[in-house]
This record gives sequence, structure tokens and C-alpha cells, in this order.
Amino acid sequence: MVSLFSDVSALVPTGPGRFDAEVSLDWTIDAKPNGGYLLAMLARAATSDAPHPHVIAASAHYLHSPDPGAVAITTTVLRAGRSASQLRTQLLQDGRICIEALITTSTLLPDTTPYWDRGLPMPVVPHPQSCVRVPGVSPMGRPVRIMEQVDLRIDPADMGFARGVPSGRGELKGWLTLSHGESFDPISLLYAVDAFPPATFEIAPTGWVPTLELTAYVRALPAAGPVRVLHKAQVIDAEKVDETCFVWDSTGRLVAQSTQLAGVRLG
Amino acid sequence: MVSLFSDVSALVPTGPGRFDAEVSLDWTIDAKPNGGYLLAMLARAATSDAPHPHVIAASAHYLHSPDPGAVAITTTVLRAGRSASQLRTQLLQDGRICIEALITTSTLLPDTTPYWDRGLPMPVVPHPQSCVRVPGVSPMGRPVRIMEQVDLRIDPADMGFARGVPSGRGELKGWLTLSHGESFDPISLLYAVDAFPPATFEIAPTGWVPTLELTAYVRALPAAGPVRVLHKAQVIDAEKVDETCFVWDSTGRLVAQSTQLAGVRLG
Repeated sequence: MVSLFSDVSALVPTGPGRFDAEVSLDWTIDAKPNGGYLLAMLARAATSDAPHPHVIAASAHYLHSPDPGAVAITTTVLRAGRSASQLRTQLLQDGRICIEALITTSTLLPDTTPYWDRGLPMPVVPHPQSCVRVPGVSPMGRPVRIMEQVDLRIDPADMGFARGVPSGRGELKGWLTLSHGESFDPISLLYAVDAFPPATFEIAPTGWVPTLELTAYVRALPAAGPVRVLHKAQVIDAEKVDETCFVWDSTGRLVAQSTQLAGVRLG
Repeated sequence: MVSLFSDVSALVPTGPGRFDAEVSLDWTIDAKPNGGYLLAMLARAATSDAPHPHVIAASAHYLHSPDPGAVAITTTVLRAGRSASQLRTQLLQDGRICIEALITTSTLLPDTTPYWDRGLPMPVVPHPQSCVRVPGVSPMGRPVRIMEQVDLRIDPADMGFARGVPSGRGELKGWLTLSHGESFDPISLLYAVDAFPPATFEIAPTGWVPTLELTAYVRALPAAGPVRVLHKAQVIDAEKVDETCFVWDSTGRLVAQSTQLAGVRLG
């Protein structure tokens, strides 16, 4: 049973700035919901209520990992501006705050082009057919049900971890496609920037790498088709890793990016 | 008159989770306070009240730029955990929210070393004596009083903008020292990650580049001495630029980093 992203991230309005939602068990990694998927739900709430239709910046601090099942989402408009607005959002389960996020919304226009993108060269990635689809089970043998919902493929050069010989580069490149050919939009791009396995897999084996903070920017409306993803670890220190992720659409435009700080046990 | 950073970012407690502060005119760029300086004040408030002494992640959304002068700061503990806590903070002026930020605090231990830092090579920067100190006036002739408070020096190879011939790389490397030899700490590192001029100067001349969102991570307690900074623009699209900044201490350890989304008018 493969679901649409728009269905598993759907909200039911229950009052001004209040929504009910259902976190899908199918969108979990070892029974824990993906953090980008949850942030996408918060952005859906923020753009349902906001004066502007698109999320352009979202910063989430993760307090507790919710279980799959019923959650409540609240939004509070902090400022409604002319070109951008800011909202505070929360995801709660059984009355407990699981995530609080700040979201800036604006209007992204179609038919525009970037002014300058030389600071971030798009990586070369083999054709999706030559990449390796990530299966619904982790290298440590744990269930990763979300990988049965999306088609996530990694450059074979970055798959050393699957054979027990990580490259040591801390970098994963590949492709991501939503189920049933659903196109990406600013909301699902918040999932895309957190979709890849931990880039630390290409350094050393780890267990769960829980996100403490995730900030994502959406830079442009994505063209239809799969997105190209570069996900990399930069520094591991004090049992924390920072990972940065970049997402290009099928025209080669950077459409979203993220940075996250996550817990990791190594060494 | 050169002030201590700890003085211009000092707070006066006025109640549980409430502080008064004074935004210094001396810490402004064309009369607008530096965004990292303001975020440092919020982190000082968060760590005054929190169960943990150090900020490790701070995400700020900027609603209005406050004027120099009196501001109020509020903090709300969202979760007090064993190894980390999360707080919401606000900076208000005349009752209006200027900044809302989420802050995660923890305890950074001395005498530790990074586990892996190969994902982020430290840049080569000429000795501070061979770098160019940024003066208290912008290339556009506007006052930048903050540069009379700190000693900020840029690699001459990245100073094309000052001669009207930007390198086109969108990158600034250099050194930052606080006045009176004050050592950096996790709080002043939040200023350090936003201290450099806009990296867009090395692409094309611009006016004010207002920060919409700034996320900073503090990775380790910094050693004494000046910090080495790499500040770079990645993509300019839809009148927004993302800039990333990395700060290494005098031992060559990455101690802080940031990403920001800012408005920019070009092209």
C-alpha cells in the first residue's frame, strides 16, 4: 500500500490556527516518523492560515519524537507583512509539544530564473537506473518503512556503507521520487531535504541519528520530475553531527536546502 | 569609545523569563543593529534561565529591525531535558516583536576533541597582519560603526569589492577579534557567525542585505584568541541569498557555523 505524500501529510482544520493530523506508520524509520515529513505538516498548516502561499524558511527544534498516530498542530501568526509573513507552529501529541517551528512564508513566482548560483555547483550523479534503490530495511537490520513509500536512489560510489566499507567522505548523492509520480511542491520539499539516510553512514555505522534542529529554505517552485539530492556530514563533535542537504529539480535549479544538527554516537 | 561585547549584550532581569537590555548604537551597520549581536542577547537570556549553560543551536526569524535603544527580552522553557533543553525567546521593542528565536541549550565540555572534521576543510587565510581591516564606512559610503568596535580583517584576495572589482566567488575569508582582547564564548560566537560583510559584496554591489532567518550551531568551547571565518554566498534567487558561515578557533577547531537567508536586490 503506497500512499500519496499529500494524503499522509493532510490536515483537518478544527478551529482558527488549529488542525488535526495523522502521522503515518508508513512514513517511519524504525517506527520513528521522519522529521522532514513532520515539518512539512507544520508548513502545510502555516500556509493554510498565512497571508502568503509558500514556505520559504522553516526552523524546527525537536523536543520529543511523536509516535505514529493522532497529532494536533497549532499556528500563530507573529507578523503578516507585505512580501513575507512569520508564524510559530507546534506539533503536539497527547498535549505534549513534540516540535516547535518558526516559519517564514512568501510568494514564489513561476517562470523566474536564478540570478547567481556559482557558489553551489550541482553534483554529477549517475542516471537513476544506475543508482541503488534504498530498501525498506536499514544496514543494521531495522525496518525503514518510508523507503517503500518513496523511490530513493543513491550513487553506487556512495553506497560503501551497505557493504561495510564506508567511503569516509560522509556524503550521499542520489535521486528522490514521490510515489504515484506526485510532483514536489514547497511543502514536500521540506521532506526532501531530510529524506536521505544519515550521511554519517559513509563515515561509520551508527544507530538512530535524532535531529535536534532542522532549518530548511525553499528557493524556487520545483519543476516536475525527480529531484537530485546532495546530503553531507561536515563535522562530528561532542556526539553531534551537522548535515547539510541540497535539492535540485529536473531543470538543474537549486529548489531547496537544509542544515541540521543531530545526535550521533561514534568513537 | 570601544565597549566590551559582554557589556553591550548585558541583560537586566526584570522577572521570571523577562529581561531589559539596551541595543547599542555602536553595534550597528547604517544604524541597524547586527542580527548576530541581537541573537547573542537572546541566547544570553536563554542560558540565564535554562537548565543548561550553553547555547548549541539557535534559529531566529527576523520580523522588524529594532532601533538602537531599549528592548525587552522574554524566554519560555519548552522542554527541560537531561542532556538538552529547548526555549522560545523574543526580542521586543515598544511592545512589538522584532525577533522570535528557538534555542536549544546543552553543556559543552572542555578538553574534548572532534571525532571527524574531514567534511569541512579549514581555509588557508593569510596572517592577520597581511589582511585588510574593514573600516567603519561601507563601500557605498554608509557608516558601519560596529567595525570600530571589533577588529575584522579580510584576506586581500577577497577584497575586490573595495576596489569595485568583485572576485565573483561570493566568498570572504578572514579574522575576527573582540575588543580589549575579550575571549569568545558560545554567546559571542553567535555574533561571530554574522559578523562579516555580506558575501554578496564579492559578487556585485548591494545595499542593505536584511536577514530573514539565521540559524547558528555552536560546536565546541572556543580557545582564546582571534577566530578564523569563512563566509560565503551560495545561491541568489528570487531576491534572496543564502549565506553560510564557519568559525574556527585558534587551535583550528570548528567552533560555530551558521546559515542565513537574506533579502538582496541585484540584477
